[in-house]
Amino acid sequence: MNMPSDLDISRSSPRKPLEEVAADLGLAPHLLEPYGRDVAKVSLSALDELGEQSRAKYVLVSAITPTPLGEGKTTTTVGLGQALHHLGKRSAIAIRQPSMGPTFGIKGGAAGGGYSQVVPMEALNLHLTGDMHAVTAANNMLAAMVDNHLHKGNELGLDPHRVTWRRVVDINDRELRNVVTGLGGSADGTPHQTGFDITAASEVMAVLALSNSLQDMRERLGRVVVGYTHQGQPVTAEQLGAAGAMTVIMREAIKPNLMQTVENTPVLVHAGPFGNIAHGNSSIVADRIASRCADYVVTEAGFGADMGAERFFNIKCRASGLRPDAAVLVATVRALKAHSGRFRVVAGKDLPKEMLDENPEDVLAGADNLRKQIDNLRMHGVSPVVAVNAFPTDHPSEHQAIREVAENAGARVAISTHFTDGGKGAVELAEAVSEAAEEPSRFELLYPDSAELRTKIETVATRVYGADGVSYTPAAERALRSYTANGFDSLPVCIAKTHLSLSSDPSLLGAPTGWTLPVREIRASVGAGFVYPICGDIRTMPGLSSRPAAERIDIDDHGEVVGLS
Amino acid sequence: MNMPSDLDISRSSPRKPLEEVAADLGLAPHLLEPYGRDVAKVSLSALDELGEQSRAKYVLVSAITPTPLGEGKTTTTVGLGQALHHLGKRSAIAIRQPSMGPTFGIKGGAAGGGYSQVVPMEALNLHLTGDMHAVTAANNMLAAMVDNHLHKGNELGLDPHRVTWRRVVDINDRELRNVVTGLGGSADGTPHQTGFDITAASEVMAVLALSNSLQDMRERLGRVVVGYTHQGQPVTAEQLGAAGAMTVIMREAIKPNLMQTVENTPVLVHAGPFGNIAHGNSSIVADRIASRCADYVVTEAGFGADMGAERFFNIKCRASGLRPDAAVLVATVRALKAHSGRFRVVAGKDLPKEMLDENPEDVLAGADNLRKQIDNLRMHGVSPVVAVNAFPTDHPSEHQAIREVAENAGARVAISTHFTDGGKGAVELAEAVSEAAEEPSRFELLYPDSAELRTKIETVATRVYGADGVSYTPAAERALRSYTANGFDSLPVCIAKTHLSLSSDPSLLGAPTGWTLPVREIRASVGAGFVYPICGDIRTMPGLSSRPAAERIDIDDHGEVVGLS
Repeated sequence: MNMPSDLDISRSSPRKPLEEVAADLGLAPHLLEPYGRDVAKVSLSALDELGEQSRAKYVLVSAITPTPLGEGKTTTTVGLGQALHHLGKRSAIAIRQPSMGPTFGIKGGAAGGGYSQVVPMEALNLHLTGDMHAVTAANNMLAAMVDNHLHKGNELGLDPHRVTWRRVVDINDRELRNVVTGLGGSADGTPHQTGFDITAASEVMAVLALSNSLQDMRERLGRVVVGYTHQGQPVTAEQLGAAGAMTVIMREAIKPNLMQTVENTPVLVHAGPFGNIAHGNSSIVADRIASRCADYVVTEAGFGADMGAERFFNIKCRASGLRPDAAVLVATVRALKAHSGRFRVVAGKDLPKEMLDENPEDVLAGADNLRKQIDNLRMHGVSPVVAVNAFPTDHPSEHQAIREVAENAGARVAISTHFTDGGKGAVELAEAVSEAAEEPSRFELLYPDSAELRTKIETVATRVYGADGVSYTPAAERALRSYTANGFDSLPVCIAKTHLSLSSDPSLLGAPTGWTLPVREIRASVGAGFVYPICGDIRTMPGLSSRPAAERIDIDDHGEVVGLS
Repeated sequence: MNMPSDLDISRSSPRKPLEEVAADLGLAPHLLEPYGRDVAKVSLSALDELGEQSRAKYVLVSAITPTPLGEGKTTTTVGLGQALHHLGKRSAIAIRQPSMGPTFGIKGGAAGGGYSQVVPMEALNLHLTGDMHAVTAANNMLAAMVDNHLHKGNELGLDPHRVTWRRVVDINDRELRNVVTGLGGSADGTPHQTGFDITAASEVMAVLALSNSLQDMRERLGRVVVGYTHQGQPVTAEQLGAAGAMTVIMREAIKPNLMQTVENTPVLVHAGPFGNIAHGNSSIVADRIASRCADYVVTEAGFGADMGAERFFNIKCRASGLRPDAAVLVATVRALKAHSGRFRVVAGKDLPKEMLDENPEDVLAGADNLRKQIDNLRMHGVSPVVAVNAFPTDHPSEHQAIREVAENAGARVAISTHFTDGGKGAVELAEAVSEAAEEPSRFELLYPDSAELRTKIETVATRVYGADGVSYTPAAERALRSYTANGFDSLPVCIAKTHLSLSSDPSLLGAPTGWTLPVREIRASVGAGFVYPICGDIRTMPGLSSRPAAERIDIDDHGEVVGLS
């Protein structure tokens, strides 16, 4: 099979005028603010104008625990949205905005792929409408105001050693992970150690994703904690007088971005919080607007169902009040074979050749992970649908093996060839999803706001991850006490652990049992609205490889982009 | 007199649809790419479509040596553009994009003011279409690739102590002036000392301003020198494989941004290179497009005529091939009184009360500066027009004093009340400018490309600044030898000195004589295309004040911006 490249498919797919794409959703032209020819922002007044008269079916796309290569959640999300159109439903797709760092690094963009992608990929993977840049600017404006406060007399009594706010750039730049700033003379600030994260890891990005409105964003930004006084009292962006300016910087960014797929299905692209330390879901405002005009809203959560879906349910749905009607679990033959423990899959390298041999036994040997992730969805009262993302190298017997495991676990299942066939390759999946979504929703949160932080962490660890229990370092214990004293204990938890295992050890495949979740430290994103325990090494700033993608990216003689993937 | 605030004037002025604004210039709708409702990018294909059939009169707005308060160049530029419309001319205004740093710092925005401003000021002073962010991203992507190259084996043999490329942010953040990066472990880069400048000071910004086309920008970015090898050979962005990716990041930024004034006169806003170390003029592509469709293009150069205008002539016009037809010199009563040396004007403080008394003698006592700046324009073969930017506190006898000085120096002169009266307040000025522009252009560069760097510096110093000569530190002498050996000596020079005096000493007012220009060091922006000798302390990263403007900027209950000025 000879597929054209993603960039070629993106270029050659005829695009509809965005006003027509919006009209398919019932969004009137005056609600659109065009940004170039291919993207438009949707005015938040859509929320008032559309009212609550209808409510779309709300479908989450999640996955089994992935290999380092990823299992195609975004392509499945796009393919499913397109397929629902084939079934005559008004569907809207809601996804995250990719970070520019990985676009120029190793991973490439995140527009989906093949005949299930968002177009044009250049717009999506580069600046889009500047929301990432607004997050960077708001984050770094706050950092400058924190340091300016220290430099100009420190009225609030901020302890310079307990400033937790860092700067961000949307570039893979390992050199900035640990820096000392404020060197030079006495007019050049105060020397101290700090660092930069990638923009997606900014709390401002998580605030953007979790806000229900502009005013809600203003309030959340005001609650952002930048550090602590010598007495251990939190100091906020509001106290520094920075939250208003941050909101003004973010005033356009709060509006979702309308694009389309290669099949002209509407897509709302909005916010991209880092899955490693934040909830990793696209924005609430995009979902709320889409749910008031579409029949189906299909959205995606980062990583496997233990991570992205759990956070989608317990953080995002808690903040929005929206209730999911069905959840797709993307599974691949290669990931289940990897979960057998018989192969080693490494990012950037070809799969081991013997993994491509027909062998349903290997698939079955890894099936515990699939079963556990199905449980994780059902535990929240949401009907699971397993989507087998089919690869040309798969064998029918292997698909059949997945089908049997899923059906035995009580899940609907469909084989999907959306990558090569677009929406029509996902029609079986779309049918299964609409059946599942027609069942009455029994959605429930895993824990109440009022539970203790310790209980929240232990509930997720034991019920979702399958741990026996949780251990805390003394620093983590101190954080629990301090956060409880400061009233942060009403927030949900966003556990930062590896996404390559249900456990906190990336080498443990399948569905590991007999282990304890080790909480090394605990941090709080009070403005965004969650506490995040950290288990293991969590990187918040990627680096570039020896041969970064940036070296291949250029313009050609006609000024067109080449080398983007 | 009770003027409404700039923000109120901006909000209450009825705006035309941008397509109509463009149509006034003969720009067809397909050449516009809307960005929201109030700004549109102009496609570079306008250059081909419009062809060279017409050439607008090209008018520069410069000023006498300003006080720290500024003398109203932008309002005069906007007012003149509006007034030319009143005279039935198709005029286009071309100005720089303001930096977001000062918007949240002390200076406020740069949209002009009163009834001569660009609207909406929120768009202009904040993200506009993201060009500043693109410059930041391209600059910092190159920095990450430089450090990645060092980290991954340093094939090119770059000397880590001679890396000259720094990072940028568009925020007033003194804390980042001097930093040590690459701390942490061996996976976290290589420790070294570096720093951040404000985005306007990035060479990428100067490249954007001086490029004639997308392909020209690609080539200039390739020529950017990031440092030197142990053998003293320059290492470029091209050699690092970064120039293509930088161009892709900058692919939308190269398109000028169309806005309008409060009187609906078209304005192209594009690029904002820092006057302190770069040429401080708006972009060549904006001027080239405007000059193919308007009758008059009115553009502005930063600082006084010794700085902005000299660089406009010898750097920007050299790169573009465009020839100016007239130059406006903005003068104010307060600045001429300040040049008498009898008063002390301090930024952020009220003027000394006695400066407001009627006193034409004080004006005449400062008139040497005006005479010298008139000479500086005429030296380049351009007809000067003195624009007295009238303040409500001025006295007619003081305006008359300026008129006499200007006329005796052979310049046309006009009193302009554009701030309070809009275009109709600048009609006298517009008439004087069109008379001047009708004279045959005798424009000439001050020195040829082929002159030695030393000759170029000395020509500007003695002829334009009025110095007796130039002195060089040993480091500056070394740089001259090294740049000549590397072939950078064919570039023009952009002398970095204070803008508050014709000399390099900000305390010397009027037209100082009997002094020597001290060149402390010399740097090169090889990609942008100039060498910049540094005379005195030149700051490339501002700081925030004790009470930054950011503290007053917020949204109101309706989501509208408040506190922006």
